[in-house]
Amino acid sequence: MPAIPDRALADALALATALFDRLAAATADPPGITRASYGEGETLAAAILAEAARALDMEVTTDAIGTLRMTLPGTDRSLPAVAMGSHMDSVPHGGNFDGAAGVVIGLAIAAALRAAGKRPARDLLVLGIRAEEMCWFPAHYLGSRAMFGLLPRDAADTLRRVDTGRTLAEHMAEQGLDPAPIRQGRALLDPRRLHAFIEPHIEQGPVLVLDDAPVAVVTGIRGSLRYPQARATGANAHAGAVPRRHRRDAAMAGVALIAALDARWAALETKGADLVCTAGILATDPDHHTSTKIPGLLRFSLDIRSLDAALLAELDGWLAAEAARIAAARGVAFDFGPSTHAAPAPMDAGLRALLRRHAADAGLPVREMASGAGHDCATFAGLGVPSVMLFLRNPNGSHNPDEALEMADVGAGLAVLVPAVAELLG
Amino acid sequence: MPAIPDRALADALALATALFDRLAAATADPPGITRASYGEGETLAAAILAEAARALDMEVTTDAIGTLRMTLPGTDRSLPAVAMGSHMDSVPHGGNFDGAAGVVIGLAIAAALRAAGKRPARDLLVLGIRAEEMCWFPAHYLGSRAMFGLLPRDAADTLRRVDTGRTLAEHMAEQGLDPAPIRQGRALLDPRRLHAFIEPHIEQGPVLVLDDAPVAVVTGIRGSLRYPQARATGANAHAGAVPRRHRRDAAMAGVALIAALDARWAALETKGADLVCTAGILATDPDHHTSTKIPGLLRFSLDIRSLDAALLAELDGWLAAEAARIAAARGVAFDFGPSTHAAPAPMDAGLRALLRRHAADAGLPVREMASGAGHDCATFAGLGVPSVMLFLRNPNGSHNPDEALEMADVGAGLAVLVPAVAELLG
Repeated sequence: MPAIPDRALADALALATALFDRLAAATADPPGITRASYGEGETLAAAILAEAARALDMEVTTDAIGTLRMTLPGTDRSLPAVAMGSHMDSVPHGGNFDGAAGVVIGLAIAAALRAAGKRPARDLLVLGIRAEEMCWFPAHYLGSRAMFGLLPRDAADTLRRVDTGRTLAEHMAEQGLDPAPIRQGRALLDPRRLHAFIEPHIEQGPVLVLDDAPVAVVTGIRGSLRYPQARATGANAHAGAVPRRHRRDAAMAGVALIAALDARWAALETKGADLVCTAGILATDPDHHTSTKIPGLLRFSLDIRSLDAALLAELDGWLAAEAARIAAARGVAFDFGPSTHAAPAPMDAGLRALLRRHAADAGLPVREMASGAGHDCATFAGLGVPSVMLFLRNPNGSHNPDEALEMADVGAGLAVLVPAVAELLG
Repeated sequence: MPAIPDRALADALALATALFDRLAAATADPPGITRASYGEGETLAAAILAEAARALDMEVTTDAIGTLRMTLPGTDRSLPAVAMGSHMDSVPHGGNFDGAAGVVIGLAIAAALRAAGKRPARDLLVLGIRAEEMCWFPAHYLGSRAMFGLLPRDAADTLRRVDTGRTLAEHMAEQGLDPAPIRQGRALLDPRRLHAFIEPHIEQGPVLVLDDAPVAVVTGIRGSLRYPQARATGANAHAGAVPRRHRRDAAMAGVALIAALDARWAALETKGADLVCTAGILATDPDHHTSTKIPGLLRFSLDIRSLDAALLAELDGWLAAEAARIAAARGVAFDFGPSTHAAPAPMDAGLRALLRRHAADAGLPVREMASGAGHDCATFAGLGVPSVMLFLRNPNGSHNPDEALEMADVGAGLAVLVPAVAELLG
């Protein structure tokens, strides 16, 4: 491939800008936009993206479960394709960029390559994936796992959308789609036909804003260990009348455990470990608590994420031991309740190096960072498809109407990705 | 005074037992009993106690605000009286003993002295005090402070009973009482006319049960420093996507502060300090919290009690400094909200020694302990009346229907108090 002319990059950025505007207008639901999983907004977005792909002379198909496949054909159709993309749905009253940016940038890259005037060897397959946001159906990576036949076979008939109470199958049928492949556990795409998968996505934290960098290569998607419904149980008692040694204070016991986790996190981080720990919920019993009563109950949640699966397992054991120690010392019982475990998804080292090299070539700061949130890319990586993500700077977090993506930063992303994808396409 | 015959003590205990039974039957409100401050149950209790006092040939009067005064007259009415007693109200569906035990035991002591057959020099004044439980009217020691003219003058017309919304003055009038002395700030009893005040009371914690002792002399009533509505404010953010250094985690900041307080408490206690610390309320925002979100808000309460006023002041300063340190390190703001400060009320050293001596004489374990809860006795002590409390063992805490007081332990209390009061009466 020749170098990509600046004019081609400028046209690609103009296309991306126009597409973001069209998506926002079509799915507006103030404040913000709404593109429900297997709902109207997601289908509207698919139509807009498909129309743009056809205008680029891409092959456009939709698989049985609604995945939009937009292909810039290569000269050797027998070669595994380079795939890109992300999901098309959003949270309710969300921002315009979480998910959609990955599809729009895929199309913009196709546009730039087409404008550059040569046909590469491999197909470029841009995927508009369905149903990634867990707020609609309570399942991780629903659309990408369905595409690869990875959902439980009863998922179409047992998963219900939180807002409607109706099943996934009903919602799919309403959008003219077919739940049969899910019921059959049938893959609609063969991962061996993919040479690579690249998912551009807005960063969901403040790191790039604070580091003054427009893009970062993702090192991996953190795995997680979660206890969403843990509790410490002691005994309610008079705040003034029970000496320390006789207390069974559930709140102090929970505080001791969470403070110990925080201290361990700080120590591990100074040794270079990748780790984030959150107690998102802390709640004494609102029906009984008062400032003058020792609380007999504390509900709390723990969410621990790391790129290092061994570290997550080690922390799980440490938590149990520390809780047992605190329980014995403080006369309380810990019940951690149900847990969820998600394995980390490391990104492909070769693809990371490729993106770093093109970032340097484009004169951009070369940054790498972990993704703390889950992404469809984890599904591809889990199937052995060499995968990578590129994060784009976003000052306001995700899943809110204030998600922001400067078009200059999209330009920076294109400056990295267009030549990188061109190189992969051969 | 001669030694008190065993027969007199047995009769006194039988009177106490009968009075407890009558009080429980008259104010039953299953589960438990209810004697609302300036309500029907409290007035019923006063009538039962007054009738018992009259049967002992005591002088019985009721002051304008409803305090029941029952006097066993001494031979020299010019001498300051020895006063005893406690409050007659209870929490809703409370136990039969919190408060009432102090009045009943006062009458039982009068009965024992009368049965012993000699008239002492001083009057024994048994007080049935009104309105001590803060759950009805939001004011500490309402009845005893009113009796000494210590309430704010607008209290009768501004304090409203929590369950009815009506004013203290309205409730007093309904019970045939007169709010005028409160409005005038007028004392109904001259503290200089009191030689001593003794308040027997059930222990509100488990110490005597765990120490296997029927009674304990109270060293003092702990003062308190309270922040019932403190909060830490940070920023909500994605639990996975924000590295430690960029977090503004309100829950982790609050946990750090409370854990630091707990550690300081443990250290101070090993040095012998009297201290109890409670965070009765811990609450991330129920409208926004979830296990996968860094919480931007933590509401919490702090209740710190000690016999040592200087220690409370020192801890208040330490808390502010520690909060400032944590706030700076963790990017959060602490707002402690309104505070309340109650001064410790040390018990009279001479009266403590007197009760210890009579406990030893009675062959009982000689125990002393702080009171973590507030009691009317603090009002008397604050006015310079030499004051002391005697705690009686109670396995089930207070302010609940399961308060329990073994009559054998009342007997132990009488074995200490009857000769001690006899000695004070001269």
